[in-house]
Amino acid sequence: MQSRNLSLLMDFYELTMANGYFKDGKHEQIAVFDVFFRSIPDDGGYAVFAGLEQVVDYIQNLRFSDEEINYLKSKDIFEKDFLNYLKTFEFHCDVYAMREGTPIFPHEPILVVKGPILECQLIETMILLTINHQSLIATKSARIVYAAQGRGVLEFGARRAHGYDASIYGARAAYISGVVGSSNTYVDFIYQIPALGTMAHSYVQSYASEYEAFKAYAMTYPNNAVLLVDTYNTLKQGLPNAIKIQQEILAPMGKMLKGIRLDSGDLTYLTKEARKMLNAAGMQETKITVSNSLDEYLIKELIHQGAQIDSFGVGERLVTARSEAVFGGVFKLSAIEVDGELVSKIKISDNIQKTTIPGFKQVYRFYDENCMAEADVMTLFDEVIDPHKPYHLFDPNFPWKSKTIENYTVKPLLIPIFQKGKLVYDLPSLKDIRAYAKKEHDTLWPEVLRLEKPHEYYVDLSQSLWDLKQSLIKQYKK
Amino acid sequence: MQSRNLSLLMDFYELTMANGYFKDGKHEQIAVFDVFFRSIPDDGGYAVFAGLEQVVDYIQNLRFSDEEINYLKSKDIFEKDFLNYLKTFEFHCDVYAMREGTPIFPHEPILVVKGPILECQLIETMILLTINHQSLIATKSARIVYAAQGRGVLEFGARRAHGYDASIYGARAAYISGVVGSSNTYVDFIYQIPALGTMAHSYVQSYASEYEAFKAYAMTYPNNAVLLVDTYNTLKQGLPNAIKIQQEILAPMGKMLKGIRLDSGDLTYLTKEARKMLNAAGMQETKITVSNSLDEYLIKELIHQGAQIDSFGVGERLVTARSEAVFGGVFKLSAIEVDGELVSKIKISDNIQKTTIPGFKQVYRFYDENCMAEADVMTLFDEVIDPHKPYHLFDPNFPWKSKTIENYTVKPLLIPIFQKGKLVYDLPSLKDIRAYAKKEHDTLWPEVLRLEKPHEYYVDLSQSLWDLKQSLIKQYKK
Repeated sequence: MQSRNLSLLMDFYELTMANGYFKDGKHEQIAVFDVFFRSIPDDGGYAVFAGLEQVVDYIQNLRFSDEEINYLKSKDIFEKDFLNYLKTFEFHCDVYAMREGTPIFPHEPILVVKGPILECQLIETMILLTINHQSLIATKSARIVYAAQGRGVLEFGARRAHGYDASIYGARAAYISGVVGSSNTYVDFIYQIPALGTMAHSYVQSYASEYEAFKAYAMTYPNNAVLLVDTYNTLKQGLPNAIKIQQEILAPMGKMLKGIRLDSGDLTYLTKEARKMLNAAGMQETKITVSNSLDEYLIKELIHQGAQIDSFGVGERLVTARSEAVFGGVFKLSAIEVDGELVSKIKISDNIQKTTIPGFKQVYRFYDENCMAEADVMTLFDEVIDPHKPYHLFDPNFPWKSKTIENYTVKPLLIPIFQKGKLVYDLPSLKDIRAYAKKEHDTLWPEVLRLEKPHEYYVDLSQSLWDLKQSLIKQYKK
Repeated sequence: MQSRNLSLLMDFYELTMANGYFKDGKHEQIAVFDVFFRSIPDDGGYAVFAGLEQVVDYIQNLRFSDEEINYLKSKDIFEKDFLNYLKTFEFHCDVYAMREGTPIFPHEPILVVKGPILECQLIETMILLTINHQSLIATKSARIVYAAQGRGVLEFGARRAHGYDASIYGARAAYISGVVGSSNTYVDFIYQIPALGTMAHSYVQSYASEYEAFKAYAMTYPNNAVLLVDTYNTLKQGLPNAIKIQQEILAPMGKMLKGIRLDSGDLTYLTKEARKMLNAAGMQETKITVSNSLDEYLIKELIHQGAQIDSFGVGERLVTARSEAVFGGVFKLSAIEVDGELVSKIKISDNIQKTTIPGFKQVYRFYDENCMAEADVMTLFDEVIDPHKPYHLFDPNFPWKSKTIENYTVKPLLIPIFQKGKLVYDLPSLKDIRAYAKKEHDTLWPEVLRLEKPHEYYVDLSQSLWDLKQSLIKQYKK
């Protein structure tokens, strides 16, 4: 559990295909693969890209030791030369990706790998696993933080996460999207995500009385005590005891009780009553935290009802993205070199949404004069956009829906991460990623941010890319 | 990503409470905590217990190095003596648990920790995280395997799992519940769970034609080739090419194509047509595997419609338990020693289902003369049941619903894992756990196994335990 070489964490077919490529002498053929997704979880207006740092970590540590080679040998289906190749594996691909924290939209490539097809294939599973997980949680967390309207959201889900990594990298992704802290001490230790917590019901039960438990806790943590007031009876006992602690223990020390937490009952009613009782006791500064199967829908409803809440502890529904626990990122071939030339590839499907967008591509984001994001446009990788000239946007499925924009700024979203296998990207700190996510989030129109029935952000194709796609569809029809 | 000391993977409040206990000299007070859950995911009839091996691994490796101690010191809220205590931490608790693979039911303790309250508290988060995750996936997988009615189910979810551990331990839990293999090579490497796979669409696209791709693959893997036939057109191109491969490549080598895989389109229609075409070509032995967002509901429906499928590749909906991604195991105080005597504790809730069952407990499973499971009965830990005497079962919420049984066998489900901190349990192999899970599954009545509206299995209290609970409720009411 504590140490592991994850190099064999890949779908077995990556290895059987790789061995096949190797045997056919095709393994150095240059290919381009796109990572993209097809729909936004929870019918939201945008998703948040996360996980790049761990993809980089994985690629930089990808090597096969004797133990792994011997395991593969035991399968009796791999060529000896292929196993030798793995033993001295080196990474030579170019990788382009969006910055972590970028708002992302369906169908656009969020990460692109270009290089020897065998190498691309070997890293498919871990790239998808990493990005799908962290983007899922970053996207869900952004919704929850949005619903809380500036009140703090605390990530409390460790005990319901899908394994240790889900707890660790889930907290990381949540922090990128604006959660203020986590209950998980480990992520404070390794990522400096503030570890936060109160007390459990068992703590209260382990003392002779609730008052004794509160007193012991307040004396140990006079500056930080958050008392859990719902073990017995919130309004008749928990609150009065908390107020008594303030009056008898903390006030004489010149301290103010930091907070109370409610984990059951009707949170709107109880927090309104609690606020009144605390205020009547001169405890306006004492904060109210609530928890208990919260998500963006319940948080929105509680606020709508005027619940008196300062912060939300959100557990299982954040860390598992329970309402939609799957982020469907895929890894699809978009081009392959034949006779030294990159040939664009398309995969046609009866389902229009499943037909892939061919070619080695870049994604540009257009901002209006107020720096609000207007549209993304996928282009051929080398296309140049001159921001001094008007640009013609059109819907790729209904091209007659179009408009021409002026006075815009534009930036490419895919930036080089690896070049010929060498890391060329300075990984930003987690704090910087979080700040970047906030900044980019704020470029989205409120219509796109809305939780229910948001406006569909424009993701278009350049004329050249659209032409390429149409020509490949025509070619295929013949 | 590759090495980690997870000892700080715990909710921060475990540490603040522990420090409080330590400061109050309460840290060696003996407490009993139960792990139990309140409802079965997907409204199923039973859940499957999994994760014990990793709980044992965690406990045995729980130690705090200088790095972790220094981190805690930097928080400036922990007593120096407490940090010294952690530095030389030793585990002294008794742990009882059910065997992995045991069918489990709401409210009964599936794992019990008895020992110094501080130690119990420190291991809460990781116990819950581990058991909640693996039991969730084992339970979901059991449903999917049941729906497949003997056809093989392959775990294909690595790329959509919630992080690396979710992929690894998810595959482990799925294997316990009868999945026949996994796409994840790593779990074959470390657990000998058979790694299985076919090919990706990109493989087919990377060759000049589908036929060329199939030919290359069949020549590399004449014994194991499973051809993905839906890249272009399943019935007009994919199947004919697969048949041609048999006739032109494999038959001359005396081989039979192992299988085909379908990953899109209407799986009932296409598999029926595919079966006819294969049979007409004398390829009765060639198996048909399908994939594409499958779960127990779709599998049941496909079989109901007469789809011709030999095995199912199940990905995201298994590995994330998408329909209900949370297993709600909790860790609750059930007793605490006061003046040398164990005092049973109850937590009352307005919600009857949330009122805890007090005391240090055992769980007995009763089997009828045909070895079918009849009921579970929670008892005080030391109660003895004499199988030669009739036993009176009654519903703990509606005690007038009762019956007396004879000719039964009975076994205690909670067995000692740690005694005074020492491991006393021989961890079974994963294969043995899987066989045990199958055997215990087969003791459940079909009425309990049903996916929709199953019979509610009886989970009762012994008379002594029921009396204890009532007396504590009465005491509380005063």
